[in-house]
Amino acid sequence: MGLLVVGSIALDSVITPFGETADTLGGAAVFFSMAGAVLHDKVQVVGVVGSDFPEAHLKTLAARGVDLAGVERQEGESFRWKARYSYDLASRETLETRLGVFAEFRPRIPEKFRSAKHVFLANIDPELQLNVLDQVENPALVACDTMNYWIQLKRDVLLQLLRNIDILMVNDSEARELSGDWNIYRAARWILSRGPKMAVIKQGEHGALLVNHETVFKVPAYPLQEVFDPTGAGDAFAGGFMAHLARSDDLSLPNVRRAMVYGSAMGSLAVEKFGVQRLEECTLQEVNARVKAFRDLVHFSLDGEEQ
Amino acid sequence: MGLLVVGSIALDSVITPFGETADTLGGAAVFFSMAGAVLHDKVQVVGVVGSDFPEAHLKTLAARGVDLAGVERQEGESFRWKARYSYDLASRETLETRLGVFAEFRPRIPEKFRSAKHVFLANIDPELQLNVLDQVENPALVACDTMNYWIQLKRDVLLQLLRNIDILMVNDSEARELSGDWNIYRAARWILSRGPKMAVIKQGEHGALLVNHETVFKVPAYPLQEVFDPTGAGDAFAGGFMAHLARSDDLSLPNVRRAMVYGSAMGSLAVEKFGVQRLEECTLQEVNARVKAFRDLVHFSLDGEEQ
Repeated sequence: MGLLVVGSIALDSVITPFGETADTLGGAAVFFSMAGAVLHDKVQVVGVVGSDFPEAHLKTLAARGVDLAGVERQEGESFRWKARYSYDLASRETLETRLGVFAEFRPRIPEKFRSAKHVFLANIDPELQLNVLDQVENPALVACDTMNYWIQLKRDVLLQLLRNIDILMVNDSEARELSGDWNIYRAARWILSRGPKMAVIKQGEHGALLVNHETVFKVPAYPLQEVFDPTGAGDAFAGGFMAHLARSDDLSLPNVRRAMVYGSAMGSLAVEKFGVQRLEECTLQEVNARVKAFRDLVHFSLDGEEQ
Repeated sequence: MGLLVVGSIALDSVITPFGETADTLGGAAVFFSMAGAVLHDKVQVVGVVGSDFPEAHLKTLAARGVDLAGVERQEGESFRWKARYSYDLASRETLETRLGVFAEFRPRIPEKFRSAKHVFLANIDPELQLNVLDQVENPALVACDTMNYWIQLKRDVLLQLLRNIDILMVNDSEARELSGDWNIYRAARWILSRGPKMAVIKQGEHGALLVNHETVFKVPAYPLQEVFDPTGAGDAFAGGFMAHLARSDDLSLPNVRRAMVYGSAMGSLAVEKFGVQRLEECTLQEVNARVKAFRDLVHFSLDGEEQ
């Protein structure tokens, strides 16, 4: 059961209260696949890197078991992103974005990836996201991210995309901007009215929310006393979420809830070290322990029941 | 099993996007006891009202079953509070605070309330809170609220109070200010190091958190598509929390978790109408249904378990 992700592969430089990195492995498709590959052994990446992209970074992905057959190397600079986090890591300022070869990215899905049953369209131009959908054969589940930039500039294309996907997975400010409604539950209902069967709203330090036509499911954030680097948490969440669905091949609501928790586990692990470091070393046992810890965090018994 | 609350009884005037009220029944002790009385029939209030306080407001409390033997009427103006909420109800601006007779409030606990087993010290001067503790005989559980004003002005007295209570129940900004730590889990641990066995952190639209030496328990906020008036949500939470503990007379951790959910249920009901309106009409059946809805909101099964 292939899990295909299409999105950015980048060189990140971040400044946090705990230190500073330069040109480390980053990008949405990277955090997604590094997290997803902990759970599932058929994670397939489509993306582009420049001629300056370190071979060692690709080896990090390959060592995690990620299939890089869809990663093209183009003449030119790699996508670079630089940001500084606030003292409490609750907000960040982008200092520099240099698209490089990513500006001309036209995803080409390799033949062997086209039968992927689970597809994640990370944040890229919605026209390219639609184009990817034309290239895959018969996916069972398509989830999609976007950003404020596309909501403002390519709203019509984005609405067309919504009619063709199963899950929109965005953060709360994006859901609010897209729907024009500040109430996050009404915003999610608005998204459902545009086509997707489910809306997954990422809420950063406040966790994540799943809304479908029947139900609302909430996973709070894991109580971390130390967060090191929030970069990629949302994409690691997406990777854990989609990888659990791909490996289990079960789209029932109880299993989608479980996928939300696996996603939250991966997101909470990702932020414990700089960049993808924590995802590099992370074991399935650690993920399962984190998932159990999420249960301890939220479960309660009603009067007269067993705890 | 008496549940004693000592705190403000006020005339509230609030402006929300949905309308405006003037001199309605409000105050921490009022929201606490109106919520608590839905669950428990021995809620006892100690507070003060002015000569202008409408008899009808006291009848509202009495009709809910609240014992008003500790409510004194003093010559002078009642405590009045006026505030305006932002369009999304996420923040509010206090327009006016007139303390009136509340400025000279010296709680006197009636003889028949002194054996209360559960005591809630709503937000008043920590010296008065300590004085209340001298007047109660042998409480099984004392919980306490405070505010930034006392954290800044009477820090030493507040720290003395912390050594004499079981639960500090504050909102997240207060916990951060008191501890000097922006990380809410570290802030809670700091509170525990000062005496209380538990810290309950109210997080508004993001729910509530229970931290003790062994565990962290989170209840997210209930997914309301319409919030009418957030006033008193935190005190209604406290009322539901303490009333469940008082009626069950069980301080085990599973039952304290349950109390967190009853508190959250009462808080989420309180905001559905202006002032105490929703708490006036609320039935035990509605509360139990809301508690079950909280379980649907957060529970999940692990792989291979029954949902």
